[in-house]
Amino acid sequence: MYDVAIIGTGPAGLSAALTLKLHDKQIIWFGSADMSAKVEKSEKIANYPGVGMVSGHELNEKFRRQAAEMGLACVDKKVTTISSMGESYALLADNEMYEAKTVLLATGVVTGKTFAGEAERLGRGVSYCATCDGFLYRKKTIAVYCADRRYEHEVEYLAGMAEKVYLNTLYKDSGIDLENVEHVGPIREVRGDTFVESIVLHDGREIPVSGLFCLRNAVAPTQLIPGITVDGAHIVVDRLQRTNLSGCYAAGDCTGRPYQLTKAVGEGNVAAHSILEYLSGAE
Amino acid sequence: MYDVAIIGTGPAGLSAALTLKLHDKQIIWFGSADMSAKVEKSEKIANYPGVGMVSGHELNEKFRRQAAEMGLACVDKKVTTISSMGESYALLADNEMYEAKTVLLATGVVTGKTFAGEAERLGRGVSYCATCDGFLYRKKTIAVYCADRRYEHEVEYLAGMAEKVYLNTLYKDSGIDLENVEHVGPIREVRGDTFVESIVLHDGREIPVSGLFCLRNAVAPTQLIPGITVDGAHIVVDRLQRTNLSGCYAAGDCTGRPYQLTKAVGEGNVAAHSILEYLSGAE
Repeated sequence: MYDVAIIGTGPAGLSAALTLKLHDKQIIWFGSADMSAKVEKSEKIANYPGVGMVSGHELNEKFRRQAAEMGLACVDKKVTTISSMGESYALLADNEMYEAKTVLLATGVVTGKTFAGEAERLGRGVSYCATCDGFLYRKKTIAVYCADRRYEHEVEYLAGMAEKVYLNTLYKDSGIDLENVEHVGPIREVRGDTFVESIVLHDGREIPVSGLFCLRNAVAPTQLIPGITVDGAHIVVDRLQRTNLSGCYAAGDCTGRPYQLTKAVGEGNVAAHSILEYLSGAE
Repeated sequence: MYDVAIIGTGPAGLSAALTLKLHDKQIIWFGSADMSAKVEKSEKIANYPGVGMVSGHELNEKFRRQAAEMGLACVDKKVTTISSMGESYALLADNEMYEAKTVLLATGVVTGKTFAGEAERLGRGVSYCATCDGFLYRKKTIAVYCADRRYEHEVEYLAGMAEKVYLNTLYKDSGIDLENVEHVGPIREVRGDTFVESIVLHDGREIPVSGLFCLRNAVAPTQLIPGITVDGAHIVVDRLQRTNLSGCYAAGDCTGRPYQLTKAVGEGNVAAHSILEYLSGAE
């Protein structure tokens, strides 16, 4: 069993990982080894103390180097469900199970809007996890929204199950070229009386489907971990980065504004110290 | 009138100053241009994301360079009193008055203990401000506790007023060599029925004095700004770094543990954004 599972390799996750590693904790760290896509895409960063004026790419490169130098490795799997087991948490990542005494959510914030009709049909034709729910759509027609190239293997997995896949990708030049996959434009809405029956594209075209998979970088916190208290899109935490769930902490953009890397590293640091206290039995 | 007065040139103050400067706010920034004495003295720092493994001196040097590159200058004066004027704050620093719409307390935490009997006699023979209260001790015998070489000019000022000064310095090799100044060992206690009557040294020696000046880097928050809510040595803030006083914010060690530079920069960043919102009238 791990001491800590950290979800997210942005600045908050890195900050916590560095401190926890220095204290010899057993860490499993989920996320892309590319670290922060958001930092990477920043043109210039001027208000992060100690690094001067840098490009996001340069800073993210420093992040990657520091993680490597500290012997920190990321597990590039997508955590889709976290369940409390009483004294520990079980995490499902790409259909594998992990167990940890504490969890740090550093997942970033879902900045992309969800589709109209999506939330109401979650678990009724809308799914965020290809490997969890894909088998339900064997020989059926489904739609897939893919927000990041790193989920293309999930699209392929779904295409192997389904009769037909209507695919919309957030990025250009998708690498998916399969007979039963049809690329379509942006999705506007998902419809259906109780279960999903169709999607509507921005151009007004309505396509009958039995299911919609949304493969995004960030899953809504309440989907990820049942029972967590949120305020809109944000996880509610106190000044020690504690959520309402014992042993579960959150840091970075997922806890609210300002969406700044400097805030994120600070919260990751505080969360790490709270976790150390919790693990020592002091809390 | 300034938009913001920042008290403290440690990581929290710097972080806030960088962000506020980027937003073209008029800043007055009080503290030593040497920046953080605490960072400077750190042997190795490994858990601050983006700079790898550095010595405190190296990192503090980066802080100084970044502040200079951003055109940020410090005013090396000690703020001793902050008073609310309704819509703004008045700050007294080395007997000069400044006015600002908002205040950020990034003062660090008083880690050195106060002397036994000190708190009860504040304003009754105990003073934290040489230039404010020195004239009260003209031709009298006083004791001075000097925690930092940068306050030696205050000791000299006091020696020019008083008949005799018993001086204890926290550091070695004090530069003070005056006829009426006697160097003594560490102070343990200050005594007196209502007003100060004597100090007691660690070696048990009791010396009659009319006043005791404590020249420390950090002044207790409640002394600095009347009416502020504290919890022990810490200023109480919410997740947006707001204190109980409208327009007054706090960040860094002064708000509580963990006493970590990464936490401090995060809080400085959040405070800066809260101040921007306040100044825009949105709060």
